[in-house]
Amino acid sequence: MHIFYLPEAAEGAVMLSEEESKHAVRVLRLVAGDQVHVTDGKGNFYKAVLGDAHPKRTVLMLGKPLPGNDRWPFYLHLALAPTKNLDRMEWFVEKATEIGVDEISFFHSAHSERRSINLERISKICVSAMKQSLKSRLPKLNEIVDYEQFIAKSFAGQRFIAWIDDGVQTEIQQLYQPGADCVILIGPEGDFNKTEVEAARKLGFEAVSLGQARLRTETAALVSVQTIQLLNRLK
Amino acid sequence: MHIFYLPEAAEGAVMLSEEESKHAVRVLRLVAGDQVHVTDGKGNFYKAVLGDAHPKRTVLMLGKPLPGNDRWPFYLHLALAPTKNLDRMEWFVEKATEIGVDEISFFHSAHSERRSINLERISKICVSAMKQSLKSRLPKLNEIVDYEQFIAKSFAGQRFIAWIDDGVQTEIQQLYQPGADCVILIGPEGDFNKTEVEAARKLGFEAVSLGQARLRTETAALVSVQTIQLLNRLK
Repeated sequence: MHIFYLPEAAEGAVMLSEEESKHAVRVLRLVAGDQVHVTDGKGNFYKAVLGDAHPKRTVLMLGKPLPGNDRWPFYLHLALAPTKNLDRMEWFVEKATEIGVDEISFFHSAHSERRSINLERISKICVSAMKQSLKSRLPKLNEIVDYEQFIAKSFAGQRFIAWIDDGVQTEIQQLYQPGADCVILIGPEGDFNKTEVEAARKLGFEAVSLGQARLRTETAALVSVQTIQLLNRLK
Repeated sequence: MHIFYLPEAAEGAVMLSEEESKHAVRVLRLVAGDQVHVTDGKGNFYKAVLGDAHPKRTVLMLGKPLPGNDRWPFYLHLALAPTKNLDRMEWFVEKATEIGVDEISFFHSAHSERRSINLERISKICVSAMKQSLKSRLPKLNEIVDYEQFIAKSFAGQRFIAWIDDGVQTEIQQLYQPGADCVILIGPEGDFNKTEVEAARKLGFEAVSLGQARLRTETAALVSVQTIQLLNRLK
């Protein structure tokens, strides 16, 4: 069963974009009367039937919204310094979407080797992972900003900064309270510097360890996602 | 600080292979007297000093073995059907090594699209991830075998088969007992078939879910590794 992502989905007739119409008719070879699924990326699925299979203006007839079962009673926001190798970021976004995350942010940090990300490309990976893992919710992706600007934002719930330092022995599972919203900061390949950690601490971020293993940036970020998801399922 | 992997490391003088000697002298540009680290991949590190920086026969003088801190009191064995796309397997091996796994096996399953793996290449990735994450233990990697042959082996501790099925509501964290050795089977892209699940059940494998999310093979395998590691740290 094919899944289409239509952010503006609603019951009734909806026209696919030119790109999606072409994909539906030329690649998937769908014809009028074929059944498909639609997600709005906001928590709903729709059963739909192809009305007109036009290569530029395919029309879908959508049924009632059906809530997806991929909701969780907390908000998980991961923020990280992008890795030098963009593949590793794209991989993180794909896997985090599969496992379950609400929001992903990127920031420039003192030791960052990469100053930019291609949000359009990352967004496509996100949509594809949402469809592939049969999710009805698309994580929110944010443009890269400076570290200081990011940590100064207001966040609901708990705030953590993952830091590899002998002085940080407390692991995240000792502080995270299941059910709580949280934002977790993951540093670049060279980690955060002390000034950055102090700045975050002053704003209420707690420094935590993710365990004994020295993890790469993208691994640390993914381990955080699975840790929060699992801690909430142990309640 | 450079880390060399020498499976036969022992206190005293040790000669690097021709390949490693070339790497040490031509790429790393090490000279006599330089300090390096060595791991035997069996739980020990050694401080070492370059004796002779010969491009084919570099000699290292190793100190006493120093136990690494990457030991855990259980044995974690992941067994999976390789994905069609080998990148995904290599990615899994890298990440699982970083997070911590003792043994990785591969099997042919009814829905497997890939029948072979390049164990030499995967082994190199494993060594590289071990060094990069400052681990002293190299996971054991096994050649691919038939599913029936694999599940018939004898395993210590608990046995799980991850299966996406409406009848399987029990999640792995409800059955896994922290401290226990375990082996976890992860199916191919098309999942296990019922016959395979039944065969495993008859041999004592418990069917478990990894949560509501529909995960790709390599994501499910990695989620299993992090889940077992975290459950053991919650003790």
